[in-house]
Amino acid sequence: MSLIVQKFGGTSVGSIERIGHVADKVARFTREGHRIVVVVSAMSGETNRLIALAHEIEDRHPMPREMDVLVSTGEQVTTALLAMALNKRGIKAKSYTGSQVRILTDNAHTKARIREIDDQRLHADLDNGYVLVVAGFQGVDEHGNITTLGRGGSDTTAVALAAALKADECQIYTDVDGVYTTDPRVVDGARRLDRITFEEMLEMASMGSKVLQIRAVEFAGKYNVPLRVLHSFQEGPGTLITLEDKLKMETPTIAGIAFNRDEAKLTILGVPDMPGVAYKILGPIGDANIEVDVIVQNVADDNTTDFTFTVSRADLPRAEEILDSIAQKLEARGVRADNRIAKVSVVGVGMRSHAGVASQMFAALAEVGINIQMITTSEIKISVIIEEKFLELAVRALHSSFHLGKEPVDESAA
Amino acid sequence: MSLIVQKFGGTSVGSIERIGHVADKVARFTREGHRIVVVVSAMSGETNRLIALAHEIEDRHPMPREMDVLVSTGEQVTTALLAMALNKRGIKAKSYTGSQVRILTDNAHTKARIREIDDQRLHADLDNGYVLVVAGFQGVDEHGNITTLGRGGSDTTAVALAAALKADECQIYTDVDGVYTTDPRVVDGARRLDRITFEEMLEMASMGSKVLQIRAVEFAGKYNVPLRVLHSFQEGPGTLITLEDKLKMETPTIAGIAFNRDEAKLTILGVPDMPGVAYKILGPIGDANIEVDVIVQNVADDNTTDFTFTVSRADLPRAEEILDSIAQKLEARGVRADNRIAKVSVVGVGMRSHAGVASQMFAALAEVGINIQMITTSEIKISVIIEEKFLELAVRALHSSFHLGKEPVDESAA
Repeated sequence: MSLIVQKFGGTSVGSIERIGHVADKVARFTREGHRIVVVVSAMSGETNRLIALAHEIEDRHPMPREMDVLVSTGEQVTTALLAMALNKRGIKAKSYTGSQVRILTDNAHTKARIREIDDQRLHADLDNGYVLVVAGFQGVDEHGNITTLGRGGSDTTAVALAAALKADECQIYTDVDGVYTTDPRVVDGARRLDRITFEEMLEMASMGSKVLQIRAVEFAGKYNVPLRVLHSFQEGPGTLITLEDKLKMETPTIAGIAFNRDEAKLTILGVPDMPGVAYKILGPIGDANIEVDVIVQNVADDNTTDFTFTVSRADLPRAEEILDSIAQKLEARGVRADNRIAKVSVVGVGMRSHAGVASQMFAALAEVGINIQMITTSEIKISVIIEEKFLELAVRALHSSFHLGKEPVDESAA
Repeated sequence: MSLIVQKFGGTSVGSIERIGHVADKVARFTREGHRIVVVVSAMSGETNRLIALAHEIEDRHPMPREMDVLVSTGEQVTTALLAMALNKRGIKAKSYTGSQVRILTDNAHTKARIREIDDQRLHADLDNGYVLVVAGFQGVDEHGNITTLGRGGSDTTAVALAAALKADECQIYTDVDGVYTTDPRVVDGARRLDRITFEEMLEMASMGSKVLQIRAVEFAGKYNVPLRVLHSFQEGPGTLITLEDKLKMETPTIAGIAFNRDEAKLTILGVPDMPGVAYKILGPIGDANIEVDVIVQNVADDNTTDFTFTVSRADLPRAEEILDSIAQKLEARGVRADNRIAKVSVVGVGMRSHAGVASQMFAALAEVGINIQMITTSEIKISVIIEEKFLELAVRALHSSFHLGKEPVDESAA
């Protein structure tokens, strides 16, 4: 008998019929003897409907405190409906708002962070045989104001509850049946992973795999909550995300190939090479709330340096403007912008103990004639920036080179 | 500078545009120097939408606890939107759920009663210059469960808050501009009353005037909260509902003519006249949750009695069935049912000190040839049951006889 936290997103509870399917699933787990806490999002479309109402009143910046009061009703509605659906199936169930659990957060409305969860009342109801249906995405600050964790925060709620309750597993139900070696729309042979480590998942997620919220994975890793990604309406084991040591015996070198099209590159040319130049360039960019991803700096012979970094495409015009004025101040030779680039990464904790991953990656790209513009490496990830038009080609070449496909490639044929 | 509680119902906040009108009105009061607490209902249609969702899951008896969680979101949405609209107009405002105020109720879900209101946090925010926007109709029990006061309970919330905060006035904004001497759709000359007592209002409301929830008027009377009924979107003084002694100098004999078509009459004939017979008849009716209104018992010469009472028309078939079986047990002569009746009442605290109201009423009805079937009297009300088809005629005759019209009737002409 396990204690399981299950999270169902907006699409999974998007209609009364789907709420019924979720209730059937939860009822099945309950009858198997598991104790269940369900975390739900608002019915799909509901959050947007509420936000649209607010924007009819105040199109620019509706008050954050009142936005939270407004949108938190979306999840509350779902909790009540699911609790009813469970009770109809003979399963004792009870709904909880974030405030009723007491999911204590800071007071950063619309993007609050969880500080503490009171597990007493929940444990008492679990001991009394209730399925608990908790509103995701929301909490309460120390003064009793309703807060929300920001979009997608329901995953975080689920993981935080699993950590607080010391649950055996946190299951995130989504519209995919697990985490794949890469995007199946790009590579036919992409394979569902049975397991992946938290770190690998973070690197995959931040590259746009979009299966799970990064915050939730970080949280799960920090508190060592086994996390499982499953399909809401299909059967299957999904992908278990867990600590590395539990996987050690079977860790492959590379877990998957991640990629991101939403990249743009900015270069400032011929900056005098002196201490503090990186800060002088990136300081104003950061002040403008623009996130910088890959950063590369090369020193030239003439005591100047070329400094290149990537931002998301939406931020490019603003970043370029800022960089132009920096270039004038620093008497640089000029600024170049390019938004036709993409990032491809190989991710795997196994590369820590396997030499040669980088050279294998570069070889595979060279073999299909792809030029590498920038390279950046971390302990478990190597990323390259390439021309966007070569993205699919690069992903397929790497997927095949690292034998990630359903049908293992014969190495001698490579 | 007064402290005023203002309540706006679902129609008054039924769209973003209307919420804007309400915000304009509240802003005007605030700029005049008043401190304002606003109580709001769900946007019109929203409560029904939520109830329909629940009935898609459980068509008979959705769990009361979860119904309250579900429908209480309706008012919460309005509070957030109105707070935003006020802030947009430069008025500091803050929303409150029933739970955040701590409107403590019993745990009778879907029909809870208020036990206590914590006014501390509200007073602190009022002192800091906030307009408070409170969700009507909802509270919280001692275990933190969300409760609702039942439909229309927002009026009760407003009055209870006014009592707890010792407000100078509780203003109920509706779709009528006040309380009338009788229904203007029946009598052309019906006149808006400037003032009426709590007791008179109760007698008028229970007869179907539908301007205010009875519970709210009772509450206001009990705690002596001056209550004013006003039109949401028209200017005007409305009708002030207050204690009798404040009106004494100007109290007319009769405040108005109330009536109710939703009446049906049941008679059990020839019951042996012995102690306890009334209980034997009405006990089983009450056990079936059927409310009885007028009751009349006459003793005949032969030691039997005819016992007549009225119920609402919807309850007639069930009441008749119960009465048939009672008649058999009591060996009564038979049962007669009639749903083509109506009740007409004259209401006024002034009749306490004025003799002859009853005879004037009966004379007025006789003059237009209306036969009285039953009569019942209280300290401030005389009601008669008549054939339904004479209802309008009766109301007009009484309205004129008691000089309630806009153009006072010349008495010598009567």
